[in-house]
Amino acid sequence: MSTTTFYWASNSCAIATHMVLEYAGADYQSQRIDFAQGEQKSPEYLRINPKGRVPALATPRGILTETPALMLFVCQQYPKANLAPLDDPFELARMNAFNSYLCSTVHVNHAHRVRGERWSDDPAVVAALKLKVAKNMADCFAYIERDYLLGPWVLGARMSTCDMYLFTIANWLEGDGVDVAGFPKVADHMKRMAASPAVAKVVALHASTVLPAG
Amino acid sequence: MSTTTFYWASNSCAIATHMVLEYAGADYQSQRIDFAQGEQKSPEYLRINPKGRVPALATPRGILTETPALMLFVCQQYPKANLAPLDDPFELARMNAFNSYLCSTVHVNHAHRVRGERWSDDPAVVAALKLKVAKNMADCFAYIERDYLLGPWVLGARMSTCDMYLFTIANWLEGDGVDVAGFPKVADHMKRMAASPAVAKVVALHASTVLPAG
Repeated sequence: MSTTTFYWASNSCAIATHMVLEYAGADYQSQRIDFAQGEQKSPEYLRINPKGRVPALATPRGILTETPALMLFVCQQYPKANLAPLDDPFELARMNAFNSYLCSTVHVNHAHRVRGERWSDDPAVVAALKLKVAKNMADCFAYIERDYLLGPWVLGARMSTCDMYLFTIANWLEGDGVDVAGFPKVADHMKRMAASPAVAKVVALHASTVLPAG
Repeated sequence: MSTTTFYWASNSCAIATHMVLEYAGADYQSQRIDFAQGEQKSPEYLRINPKGRVPALATPRGILTETPALMLFVCQQYPKANLAPLDDPFELARMNAFNSYLCSTVHVNHAHRVRGERWSDDPAVVAALKLKVAKNMADCFAYIERDYLLGPWVLGARMSTCDMYLFTIANWLEGDGVDVAGFPKVADHMKRMAASPAVAKVVALHASTVLPAG
């Protein structure tokens, strides 16, 4: 049995780290947290991650959280998978900058449609926060399409964690009211990512409602 | 003349990276962007950072952005400053996780008081978003006080980029309506950070309205 456990929720941003684990061929156990049942707020899970969120990775040395940090950690644990430019600080900074932009700006914009209660207790305000989500997400993806996604992968010739994270958030666009067809490079990137066996495996796992054994 | 230029705005989150540059003894030029005059939206600055934000670091290989990425990059450029656990992936992941939490959750909560127009075009909604900021920031700092700030520094015995970033955001608490006295470890951390010459130099620079020469 592996001494490392990955905690995730279906179709949450944890899917990005989940894909990195699969691409890396990592040795880990998988533990689904059921957000529909509020399991992320259970005393058991709050002992693992007091933030009550996913992803979290329990390692022999302790628990780690936050997508950009987890993805880089997995890359360092499995350097042969070559999913991060570990030997080039400038390229690594480009990877980290893109991932930081996704977590601090793009994911946050999306969250104003589905998690508005984080920032207001007034239902009318929470409802009003949904109105600007499509424009904000379209603005972010216009920027990603033009400046960040060098092609064929985000960092250019090499695949990296940026590709798993971009694929994760690009899949939220339709629900946010944004047609990805307006961003041809992103749309093409999504198709190529979806065709990868590691991505397909994780997507199927997150789409299923039956808990996997491992 | 240095081939690296750091772009910052007074009292923005760029002050964290600015402190890391000073602690590291980095060779860089400093360029202040005047947010009061809207300089971040000027065609000249948008060529440097199309996001219209700070910080940005122009290097001989290209421009880098996003606080967590920039801070790690500076640490890797100046390893002798020992501001990041570069040789320990688990500790590095703890550093990156804390910095990611600050940028994607804590800074975002603060921004709902001062940048609400990012998420709504309705002035009444923008005003309403200020109401929950004190509670959200207090919740974040309760978590930081209890779980993240090991003492004497965030990561424990060693100072790291986390300390510069925490100091930066802790200084926003008063304006957000939160009394830092409620978080004794954070308050003590702020005092010790403020007493550092590198911190005092950058704080004075950001507080001044006169443009520095270099």
